[in-house]
Amino acid sequence: MIPSIATVCVSGTLQEKLEAIAAAGFKAVEIFENDLIAFPGSPTEVRRICGDLGLTIVTCQPFRDFEGMPEGRRQRVFDRAERKFDLLQELGTDLLFVCSSVSPEALPGIDRLAADFAELGERAGRRGLRVGYEALAWGRHVFDYRDAWEIVRRANRPEVGIVLDSFHILARGLDLSTIGTIPRDKIAMVQMADAPLLQMDPLSWSRHWRCLPGQGDLDLAGFMRALVSTGYDGVLSLEIFNDRFRAGSARSVALDGHRSLIWLLDETARQIGKPVPGAVTMPPPGPAQAVEFIEFAVSEAERPGFEKLLRALGFTRAGAHRSKEVDLWRQGDIRIVLNSEADGFAHSYQITHGTSVCALALRVPDAQAAITRAKALLDVPHAGAIGPGELDIPAVRGLGGSLVYFLDKASALGRWAEVDFAATGEAAGDAGLTGVDHVSQSMQYEEMLTWLLFYSSLFDTHKTPTQAVLDPGGVVQSQVIESGLDGAKGHGLRLILNGSQSHRTLSARFITDFFGSGVQHIAFATDDITATVARLVSNGVAMLPIPENYYDDLEARSELSAQEIDAMKALNILYDSDAGGSFRQAYTQTLDGGLFFEIVQRDGYAGYGAANAGIRLTAQARLARPITIPAPGHG
Amino acid sequence: MIPSIATVCVSGTLQEKLEAIAAAGFKAVEIFENDLIAFPGSPTEVRRICGDLGLTIVTCQPFRDFEGMPEGRRQRVFDRAERKFDLLQELGTDLLFVCSSVSPEALPGIDRLAADFAELGERAGRRGLRVGYEALAWGRHVFDYRDAWEIVRRANRPEVGIVLDSFHILARGLDLSTIGTIPRDKIAMVQMADAPLLQMDPLSWSRHWRCLPGQGDLDLAGFMRALVSTGYDGVLSLEIFNDRFRAGSARSVALDGHRSLIWLLDETARQIGKPVPGAVTMPPPGPAQAVEFIEFAVSEAERPGFEKLLRALGFTRAGAHRSKEVDLWRQGDIRIVLNSEADGFAHSYQITHGTSVCALALRVPDAQAAITRAKALLDVPHAGAIGPGELDIPAVRGLGGSLVYFLDKASALGRWAEVDFAATGEAAGDAGLTGVDHVSQSMQYEEMLTWLLFYSSLFDTHKTPTQAVLDPGGVVQSQVIESGLDGAKGHGLRLILNGSQSHRTLSARFITDFFGSGVQHIAFATDDITATVARLVSNGVAMLPIPENYYDDLEARSELSAQEIDAMKALNILYDSDAGGSFRQAYTQTLDGGLFFEIVQRDGYAGYGAANAGIRLTAQARLARPITIPAPGHG
Repeated sequence: MIPSIATVCVSGTLQEKLEAIAAAGFKAVEIFENDLIAFPGSPTEVRRICGDLGLTIVTCQPFRDFEGMPEGRRQRVFDRAERKFDLLQELGTDLLFVCSSVSPEALPGIDRLAADFAELGERAGRRGLRVGYEALAWGRHVFDYRDAWEIVRRANRPEVGIVLDSFHILARGLDLSTIGTIPRDKIAMVQMADAPLLQMDPLSWSRHWRCLPGQGDLDLAGFMRALVSTGYDGVLSLEIFNDRFRAGSARSVALDGHRSLIWLLDETARQIGKPVPGAVTMPPPGPAQAVEFIEFAVSEAERPGFEKLLRALGFTRAGAHRSKEVDLWRQGDIRIVLNSEADGFAHSYQITHGTSVCALALRVPDAQAAITRAKALLDVPHAGAIGPGELDIPAVRGLGGSLVYFLDKASALGRWAEVDFAATGEAAGDAGLTGVDHVSQSMQYEEMLTWLLFYSSLFDTHKTPTQAVLDPGGVVQSQVIESGLDGAKGHGLRLILNGSQSHRTLSARFITDFFGSGVQHIAFATDDITATVARLVSNGVAMLPIPENYYDDLEARSELSAQEIDAMKALNILYDSDAGGSFRQAYTQTLDGGLFFEIVQRDGYAGYGAANAGIRLTAQARLARPITIPAPGHG
Repeated sequence: MIPSIATVCVSGTLQEKLEAIAAAGFKAVEIFENDLIAFPGSPTEVRRICGDLGLTIVTCQPFRDFEGMPEGRRQRVFDRAERKFDLLQELGTDLLFVCSSVSPEALPGIDRLAADFAELGERAGRRGLRVGYEALAWGRHVFDYRDAWEIVRRANRPEVGIVLDSFHILARGLDLSTIGTIPRDKIAMVQMADAPLLQMDPLSWSRHWRCLPGQGDLDLAGFMRALVSTGYDGVLSLEIFNDRFRAGSARSVALDGHRSLIWLLDETARQIGKPVPGAVTMPPPGPAQAVEFIEFAVSEAERPGFEKLLRALGFTRAGAHRSKEVDLWRQGDIRIVLNSEADGFAHSYQITHGTSVCALALRVPDAQAAITRAKALLDVPHAGAIGPGELDIPAVRGLGGSLVYFLDKASALGRWAEVDFAATGEAAGDAGLTGVDHVSQSMQYEEMLTWLLFYSSLFDTHKTPTQAVLDPGGVVQSQVIESGLDGAKGHGLRLILNGSQSHRTLSARFITDFFGSGVQHIAFATDDITATVARLVSNGVAMLPIPENYYDDLEARSELSAQEIDAMKALNILYDSDAGGSFRQAYTQTLDGGLFFEIVQRDGYAGYGAANAGIRLTAQARLARPITIPAPGHG
């Protein structure tokens, strides 16, 4: 199949849109009529620009309210169609894209509609053009692709085919099996869109909430399986109406679009176990099995303070890099790399973002396969400076210009800690932290779908629905991506993506005041949170104070004993539970740069303590903005 | 009735919320349990803070999943209730607010539920407390206030009453007449929320889209009529979950909240023609009959250029202020005041915002009544410096710190132009502009509901639903407020409020780059747009170029003759029509400060040319950002 995208998906003027689409590697484009009308040059000029950019124009759409017109109005729609044929020919394209009528004047009757399309097909045929018919989910009489197909079948013209749009079909929950019965030469083109599951009217849902394949919850896999069974190998075009994309960077959205189609074709081929026309050959997505290490870019000046904090958290300086100003710190299965090199990637990152997480290294089954897959998905590889005998760890660019490294146990990369670092032999100062439970990244709201797609296309992942979390400064949208969770503690990858349209939330202020988009918080696992936090406190780590009211409320609503609650209260530990078990969590106070740490004890529980998020965010907001409480006795 | 607000309505920590609520003049508050739990002091301390701020605590809510529990779980909910009674007593309040259970464990059966409430009432009574029961629109068994009322009736305890919430009742479209049958002493409290009409599930609608009375589309008037018929005079409390409010200023939202309740009580009294307990006496809302004048704050340096533009637009310098550096310019019924005073309000406005509209003067039937009403609605009056013999024009603060003046024909204010200005006798240079058709104001997205309420509480207005307008840089939300339209041209007030969550739209860039929130565009009416625009062009006014493709498309889709279309094309005039008639519009290019003018000819048409907005915005974006088109022949 041929990846394509509609100009309506991205922001900007038509010229800007086309340039962004070409830069993302597309070879085909659907021009939206409104973009053409607003363009200050002729259709011939648009054709030339597309030609210069290497873009084939698939169609210029839509053509609305055509079929079913009463006798007195019928001639007029055919006149309009002839004008549109002129335009299509000027643009050098051949497909008239008709979406089902929403006109209150339109009459029903499948044979009437078929007759309209038979005549339209004949007229198109005289000019060597084609006609595609799409059932809008909110069409007046035709809103089911099976009805559109029956009309196309009865029109019985070689020029007339059906347009299948995944959104219009899946939004109505239509049975997909009829797709498999449509001859491939009767499918004029296919449009792809995903969407989150929302309970709202289909028109608003479609106009504002569509998203790229892989970013939503629709059964695109089922749609693609049915489509592939027809032998279809034509255009597969993205048609996404999304307010975030309209407000975002055209280049970024177009690149995401291309990535989503490459992913979708690969995913489809993998599911049906057969080659799919147009699919790129690449290794399958593997799990992210663990966070192998977290790398901080640290300035020389801030390094002593940061090292002191790591020691207080129970970490030990376990290794010194053989050629660089880089140290390896360890505790349990957690490895933290501190990079204070005076040049190179981490240095530039530190200059731009301050002391912060500049890279996440993920353990995968096969690092070479992961980087090969990443490249096939248009991710941007990164190559750093490597000393003699040191490992060349494959990496791609991630959120906010940080890096994602791939490491495995199977190759020499499995020995990265020994190869690149000389052991210090320092004694362990263990506080009971066993692994990285999860990492949360704060990003611009408009970026959230980009990074969701980045992770979910690269790895074998599971995502939760977006959740609204209440910060005293506004709503934060939060979405969890999980990969490689094998039930064992501290294994796999749990990532939380946070974005906020308010400028006053902790998440938004992190981006504005501190680092830009990046890792804001790291949660470490422990098997005994009480012992761990007690140790941290005695080491001088400032924990986030939790109000006493929280524990009074917990006592009222939970089955915990007063003793258990008192123990948590003493250490500012929060509690949650689900069907699987219980969860305990505590937070350090926020560092100057906006970063903070969490300690969690997970006993069969699957979530992240969302019920406690408001308490935590309010406590953090209070520390960020000191508040004067009026003195008593003035009432 | 006693105006109250729930702490959940506004942003911030509990302390900040309470201070904002008190500053807005509220005397009563509902504390949301989550705010209390996140507060780092005891309930007694909250009670003291509220006391210091002059706030009575109405309740601390909610109490969830109480009724219908199976035998084994039943004791536990009563234990929880006793704990909550303790808390209420510590807070110094007396109402336990129970919302209908959503627990999957809850059993149905109206007598079972009534028995639960009878026992709860008895327990509450022992402590001198009360119980209120609210039917959530998504309750498991009880989601209709009539069922809640039947349960309260059968519980038959003096301590147990119903809580009526306008959202939960109106969102389900329930019949309101049963409200009138509830004895006033059985209504424990009333919660108020409005909402825009959206087709989505009630839970999401409620949690994110509620708004203040007057800002939405629910039949609050009908609800209030029914409520007043019971003789109820208790607490009327705002409970608004709204993402914009959560991201906005707590003080501004609290003030809007108080204004909305004052407005609602006044509106109710007016509709039923009888006094309503707690309503503030104020003059009725009148129409805004016309834009009497528009005042620009202009720097001395920019004045010659601005005057040149006014002349080119056909305006004449008709008067000179008797004591100030202020001129009056006229054309048809349009009056423009240029203020270049070296001190005073316009001067400070110009310093902050650059050359821009600093005031709108609106003609009303009675200016004194209008300012009296404005003060009753908590609007902020403004008093400027007045020379001897000059008029004291009543004014209030409007959007972005600009002013709204009130003028009438009945008082001496009707002669403002003659009293304050000496006629220059300059010959008219008429371009055929007859009046102000509409004015558009760009504002922060979070401010839109504030200014909607400001205008709609002050005047007798009609508002359209919010519309999404597509700018190449993102979506702009646009809402129209109309007042005093009497069918005659150029009369009445038509205001467009624009706000955008994207930072890249024309509207958002106006706020960021130029003036801050304020008037971005003024549309003048003409009876002959062809003659007017031809004149403007010959006077050297640069009009916004409209692409030829627009006219080709117009020819294909409209009934206009080629001749008519050619005439419009020659002058960059856009066209639209509705059931009432036709509409023609043309735009000047944008001035340095971001302001632009529109010329419209309205022949029975009621809208604003929304269908053309995308074309216009793209043309404006293109001029704002020059684009290189690749040279031909490189393909």
